Amino acid sequence: MTSRLEKFRTERERLNARVLETATTTTKRFFNLDTNCYRDGALPARTKEMLGLSASLVLRCDDCIAYHVIKCVELGVSEAEIGEIFDVGLIVGGSIVIPHLRRARGLLDELLQENADEPG
Amino acid sequence: MTSRLEKFRTERERLNARVLETATTTTKRFFNLDTNCYRDGALPARTKEMLGLSASLVLRCDDCIAYHVIKCVELGVSEAEIGEIFDVGLIVGGSIVIPHLRRARGLLDELLQENADEPG
Amino acid sequence: MTSRLEKFRTERERLNARVLETATTTTKRFFNLDTNCYRDGALPARTKEMLGLSASLVLRCDDCIAYHVIKCVELGVSEAEIGEIFDVGLIVGGSIVIPHLRRARGLLDELLQENADEPG
Amino acid sequence: MTSRLEKFRTERERLNARVLETATTTTKRFFNLDTNCYRDGALPARTKEMLGLSASLVLRCDDCIAYHVIKCVELGVSEAEIGEIFDVGLIVGGSIVIPHLRRARGLLDELLQENADEPG
Amino acid sequence: MTSRLEKFRTERERLNARVLETATTTTKRFFNLDTNCYRDGALPARTKEMLGLSASLVLRCDDCIAYHVIKCVELGVSEAEIGEIFDVGLIVGGSIVIPHLRRARGLLDELLQENADEPG
Amino acid sequence: MTSRLEKFRTERERLNARVLETATTTTKRFFNLDTNCYRDGALPARTKEMLGLSASLVLRCDDCIAYHVIKCVELGVSEAEIGEIFDVGLIVGGSIVIPHLRRARGLLDELLQENADEPG
Repeated sequence: MTSRLEKFRTERERLNARVLETATTTTKRFFNLDTNCYRDGALPARTKEMLGLSASLVLRCDDCIAYHVIKCVELGVSEAEIGEIFDVGLIVGGSIVIPHLRRARGLLDELLQENADEPG
Repeated sequence: MTSRLEKFRTERERLNARVLETATTTTKRFFNLDTNCYRDGALPARTKEMLGLSASLVLRCDDCIAYHVIKCVELGVSEAEIGEIFDVGLIVGGSIVIPHLRRARGLLDELLQENADEPG
Repeated sequence: MTSRLEKFRTERERLNARVLETATTTTKRFFNLDTNCYRDGALPARTKEMLGLSASLVLRCDDCIAYHVIKCVELGVSEAEIGEIFDVGLIVGGSIVIPHLRRARGLLDELLQENADEPG
Repeated sequence: MTSRLEKFRTERERLNARVLETATTTTKRFFNLDTNCYRDGALPARTKEMLGLSASLVLRCDDCIAYHVIKCVELGVSEAEIGEIFDVGLIVGGSIVIPHLRRARGLLDELLQENADEPG
Repeated sequence: MTSRLEKFRTERERLNARVLETATTTTKRFFNLDTNCYRDGALPARTKEMLGLSASLVLRCDDCIAYHVIKCVELGVSEAEIGEIFDVGLIVGGSIVIPHLRRARGLLDELLQENADEPG
Repeated sequence: MTSRLEKFRTERERLNARVLETATTTTKRFFNLDTNCYRDGALPARTKEMLGLSASLVLRCDDCIAYHVIKCVELGVSEAEIGEIFDVGLIVGGSIVIPHLRRARGLLDELLQENADEPG
């Protein structure tokens, strides 16, 4: 069975490629800006990914949440820390955020399982 | 074939359990507040579920709409009354609400069918 | 000193007149639909105004909140009932609703004062 | 395999029929207004569909985006022009629009393929 | 008395200057992209400003609406055409857009008056 | 002349007091949760205020932005760091965030001036 995580990654990669193949200069430049914006600066990349996750939660965008959860885990944000980012998203954005928290939890479970399965 | 209604219920239950197993105190308390907020008070639970449905429609959250439609039907809100809650959601929120009305209609059809199939 | 309530009413009336003077048929028809939508039907006007208030709170529109609070008070929704509509708006929409609750509270205070000042 | 485009069309048609069968007068009138709003007027239908697409992008509604992309293509909006509507949506609405751009791109690819496959 | 139009222009200019004086490279580049995005391309600047107006209406941002209304008038979009952009914004975004239409109408009145007062 | 900062503080304090005087248990508990959510935990209060600011920017709520900017400055977030939180808000939320960035910049200028004026 294809996991939600795999499906997200494959679909995202395939369609991002198509978007960029067909993109205007404006869209290409925006994609660059978007990438650069999360690089280490006055704030470390790790904090910026947390900021991106908090913003994505309250805007209730599943794909953006998935993306930033994956990046947070990659950059060593702990499960307890992610739990508190979820808190801020929930308190700021209200119960309407809950369906997205549910799906984020499902994805985080897959992600932690995947990491646990990898040989050390 | 699994109906949209069944899928919604199973997925919601499974992931809510995971969210609560892993939740911080803040998230747990918010879930309690969320539940208590729809209890009988100055306004009956029935009216509050209608308010929740109207809010969910304009925020365009399918899962929240599904949840409040189910609760409204449980608490005896008639199909004609639900139709007028849909009206308010549509007029306040505009044509962008229509795709959610479509899915809410599909779910309501399943729900009314399910109730009709139950022995009296 | 001009109260927030008076300012809201004067500005709203003046500009609504201008909008309608210059409106297309589509806009005029939408305004009619909007008015008719809150008339007594399967649900009483009173309930529909509550639904409109709950939707306006989560969409965070001060003018719409002001309008529906005024209509709710006119149709006899009690202060305790309005308090519970605020609850639903706050729980569904999160802390981002609080600044609007503050202004709604200020307006409701003016409105109740105005009603108290009127000879019986 | 059923394409995303076909699925969108079938589902939309089936459920729109159900919505209209069960609709209140308010909902029916709104659907009429919605249709009429995109007719030729001071602005041609073609421009209005572009306006609808730009609005749908920033509101991040996949079904509305799909609908207006299909209409734009039908009314002869070129791929380069659609690319610049995507630009406006992306710049106004930010990176949160990207997942919707991806899906819109996927759908546009299917649509252009479908048109290419049709005998002249 | 300072008109709403003048106040908008002065405040916008003063604070944009401060934003740019203190801006990061990311913010500066975004401002450039934002400006370039509305230049003539496959679509003329005039159409793009209309797209920006439609997007701003449904996102209910008064300052963005004011900005694009001013640009539309500068680029020769007629009052009748603006009326139909307002239609699309109202139908897509619903009654929650009305307070913004009111303020946009007030601003458009000031703008047309200002143009009428200018020597030919 | 009253600064925007002073006006924000006075208005906020006066109306928050009224909201709490008249609040239901649900509203009071939500206010408590909201306060507790930003306390030191797995993440320090400082990071949580940054998350709150990023969420407030993309939801485009001036009062929430003002509140979190003030808290960030109190907790020692530097101007350069705030600039990068603004970047994330701008990139995630798009040009529609710019009017709020302008007002946030104005408020931050007042705040830094106020701190500079204080005797050491």
